[in-house]
Amino acid sequence: MEQVAWDELLRRMGELRDFGGVVGLLTWDQETFMPQRSADGRAAQLAAMQALIHERVVDPRLGELLVAAAADGGLDEDRAAMVRNLGRERDRAVKVPPALVRELAQAQSRAVEAWRAARAEERFSIFQPHLERLVELRRAQADAIGHAGERYDALLEGHEPGMRVSRLEPLFAELEKALVPIVETITAAPQPARWNYASQRFPVDAQWDFTIGLLEEMGFDLTRGRQDRSTHPFTDGIHVDDVRLTTRLTEENPFQAFFSTIHEGGHGLYEQNLPRAHVRTPVGSAASMGLHESQSRLWENMIGRSLPFWRRQLPALRRLFPAQLEGVSPEAIYAAVNRVERSPIRVEADEVTYNLHILLRFQLELALLRGDLTVADLPAAWNERMRKDVGIEPKGDREGVLQDIHWAWAEFGYFPTYTLGNLYAAILHERLERDLGGVAQVIEAGRLHAVRDWLAEKVHGVGHRWDAEEIVARATGEKLSAAPFLRYLEAKYGALYGVAL
Amino acid sequence: MEQVAWDELLRRMGELRDFGGVVGLLTWDQETFMPQRSADGRAAQLAAMQALIHERVVDPRLGELLVAAAADGGLDEDRAAMVRNLGRERDRAVKVPPALVRELAQAQSRAVEAWRAARAEERFSIFQPHLERLVELRRAQADAIGHAGERYDALLEGHEPGMRVSRLEPLFAELEKALVPIVETITAAPQPARWNYASQRFPVDAQWDFTIGLLEEMGFDLTRGRQDRSTHPFTDGIHVDDVRLTTRLTEENPFQAFFSTIHEGGHGLYEQNLPRAHVRTPVGSAASMGLHESQSRLWENMIGRSLPFWRRQLPALRRLFPAQLEGVSPEAIYAAVNRVERSPIRVEADEVTYNLHILLRFQLELALLRGDLTVADLPAAWNERMRKDVGIEPKGDREGVLQDIHWAWAEFGYFPTYTLGNLYAAILHERLERDLGGVAQVIEAGRLHAVRDWLAEKVHGVGHRWDAEEIVARATGEKLSAAPFLRYLEAKYGALYGVAL
Repeated sequence: MEQVAWDELLRRMGELRDFGGVVGLLTWDQETFMPQRSADGRAAQLAAMQALIHERVVDPRLGELLVAAAADGGLDEDRAAMVRNLGRERDRAVKVPPALVRELAQAQSRAVEAWRAARAEERFSIFQPHLERLVELRRAQADAIGHAGERYDALLEGHEPGMRVSRLEPLFAELEKALVPIVETITAAPQPARWNYASQRFPVDAQWDFTIGLLEEMGFDLTRGRQDRSTHPFTDGIHVDDVRLTTRLTEENPFQAFFSTIHEGGHGLYEQNLPRAHVRTPVGSAASMGLHESQSRLWENMIGRSLPFWRRQLPALRRLFPAQLEGVSPEAIYAAVNRVERSPIRVEADEVTYNLHILLRFQLELALLRGDLTVADLPAAWNERMRKDVGIEPKGDREGVLQDIHWAWAEFGYFPTYTLGNLYAAILHERLERDLGGVAQVIEAGRLHAVRDWLAEKVHGVGHRWDAEEIVARATGEKLSAAPFLRYLEAKYGALYGVAL
Repeated sequence: MEQVAWDELLRRMGELRDFGGVVGLLTWDQETFMPQRSADGRAAQLAAMQALIHERVVDPRLGELLVAAAADGGLDEDRAAMVRNLGRERDRAVKVPPALVRELAQAQSRAVEAWRAARAEERFSIFQPHLERLVELRRAQADAIGHAGERYDALLEGHEPGMRVSRLEPLFAELEKALVPIVETITAAPQPARWNYASQRFPVDAQWDFTIGLLEEMGFDLTRGRQDRSTHPFTDGIHVDDVRLTTRLTEENPFQAFFSTIHEGGHGLYEQNLPRAHVRTPVGSAASMGLHESQSRLWENMIGRSLPFWRRQLPALRRLFPAQLEGVSPEAIYAAVNRVERSPIRVEADEVTYNLHILLRFQLELALLRGDLTVADLPAAWNERMRKDVGIEPKGDREGVLQDIHWAWAEFGYFPTYTLGNLYAAILHERLERDLGGVAQVIEAGRLHAVRDWLAEKVHGVGHRWDAEEIVARATGEKLSAAPFLRYLEAKYGALYGVAL
């Protein structure tokens, strides 16, 4: 490929990343500082930017350049990955008719309204016709994109490039089979003695200071990012040097803020350590939603919910909350933040039961897409599986099938990335343990920068040169499986609950 | 013009406003919350957005639509104004060669660096070659845009559509002739007794609360806008429902924050009360920089620096600063915030001497553009005029020719809009006095909403249907002149200083 053509392609790639960052700022601001009544104006600005990005992606000239580049056998690995990644994105965009894109956007917007009303009145029937329409439109979209017989794959690809249902089904079956008896054993055991913090109040300013200290200890660079407050915590990579996270502060439960910060901090480290030379190309971003989630989960659960972490943090915490922490041991905190319980609500679930909530959603949305389940039958199917797998019956659809907003957003193929994140995290964690020679000591010594540096080298700095599974395989030498995650649960919860798992 | 073509034109106008609002958010964030080391990434995003807007403005299809619309005699007044405004903007953009635009951007960026270095070392010679280049490039730009013999007009038009040097010269000469003896008389008179607040400290949190109260009293809608802190206060109209201002808080001088807030609040009210039906068209924006400045000056000086205003505000201020305000009268505050002094620095100047600083800059930059003055002779010319007009000699170039950043930004034709703002403000203020039957009583009664409503109807809500001078003429029945402003100064400062002006 001629240099001048490659330069044009690079320029177009860079412009797309700039516009993507602009969308990032618009959405970050919407959730943090935007005035209460500015929603309509912001929606117009976001729609204009998204239409612009779509216009640039489907531009025939970009197609020509990508075809020419793909035909060039002499591209190095990074350039080949740039062409492959943008080519995949462009193919998806080109294949879906604009009328379908518009119809989906309108149907989503109406479905979210209906979902809110259905929740408020606890009447699934209000939401039902909207969800039926969304399933229909997503099936049409999947057919437009193309697939080898499994529509769900076409949607999954948008969140987890390279992943397929045929890989997920056996993997998730193995996980489910092992998890159900583990939950059974743990919930039958007596709960360990734990700190009952619910009776106390924790001033939010001191919580804030503690979360900033956590970010510093994790090695999150606050000169190239920031933390703010929002109702639903999130991370937004506006640019490799402008990574913004949010946390949620309530006086009642300081751990909500602490673990939100650690979780989003894990996402934030990924965004801050993407390959600097490639940040304005399609190689300079995260490889998948699942791999992104592996970073937040590794930090939140495997580090943040570990005993050495609270041994290390207790003195700082005690300085901020001396009265509340009177006589509280690290062990009591550790037990408090790792309490396993059957709950009908996904976002309140502990790390042992959490994946059961995800597997249920994956199986149900897969059945909807396949046509094996109707939307009308969905609430009953939900409740039945919840009883069978999680061992608890929702009291109504609000804490059942209506609990998540994802389906109202027409997001099918997104939920499994949460569980993939947990599985990838465990694989990385095992390798980290070997390479660092004892993660527990590293954590207790406050040397979390060593963890960050390892992840930055093995995962973050790779960008999207390869798909997620290959990145993890190259970093660890291990294939994707549920075994490391199960070993992690068995060791941690076996010891904590004094049971054999 | 066919409906379908008009709809396309409207859609393109709306998209341009959306993109403009996005640029507004990017720049607002840059000055408020952006992390310290994110500047390069933000610069790339801003450059991409500006290049996009330029691309859309010069798009030949937009040119065709505007020509077709301009040829249609049946457009109503609003539509005709939309076509005229966007047509003028497009003409300017099309006529300037892209190479010149790029060269200007690069030369500006280098000139700002050189200006900072020249200030730090107090050596004009560091800045001189850069300023010479900027003058040369702006002359070339003015020739590209076209003019009737006066290059400055082509630049002025970018800030003050419809205004010409031939109008400004006699107007400013009249003003200067009257101002010099007024300053002479006032500075020769004994200073009135005033509150010496400089010896006290004012906690910034209480200042903040007071500024929010001021915005509420002015009728600035905080559900459709917000205030934050920044080093240099500014207002950013991201959307009619998303108007953001900043203020600057220092413990030493609370009036810096108070008057910044009132000043920016005046700009903010303009942006919040633009014609809602037209906000996504070229009629839904302010008519000129001068008219915008008239709003901030009217609020800051004519209302905020009035005696009834401080009569009204004193109780609220006393609740926040009881110790500092012990025994302080409204009259003492009024005298403190209206102290007239000869100062070499524009941004510290009072409202009597302020315009002399502007007239000096206008005359010098006009002479540079005309070729009547070389950049090498600029510092001496500056000092001579400063001595003659303001009656004070700068101690060096840092408080002389190097004090403002505007020329390093290559901004020529911008300074006169400050004085136009003062003149427009006085014309509006005289009419407001008649229509409201006593502005002083309105202010003292805290009925500032009445002022806002009058301005919203007569100025803000007109948008850019007409150019600034016509808007003011229709609102007041008066032509642009210096007389109302001089009457205002004579009445206010004659009484305050006990002199006949």
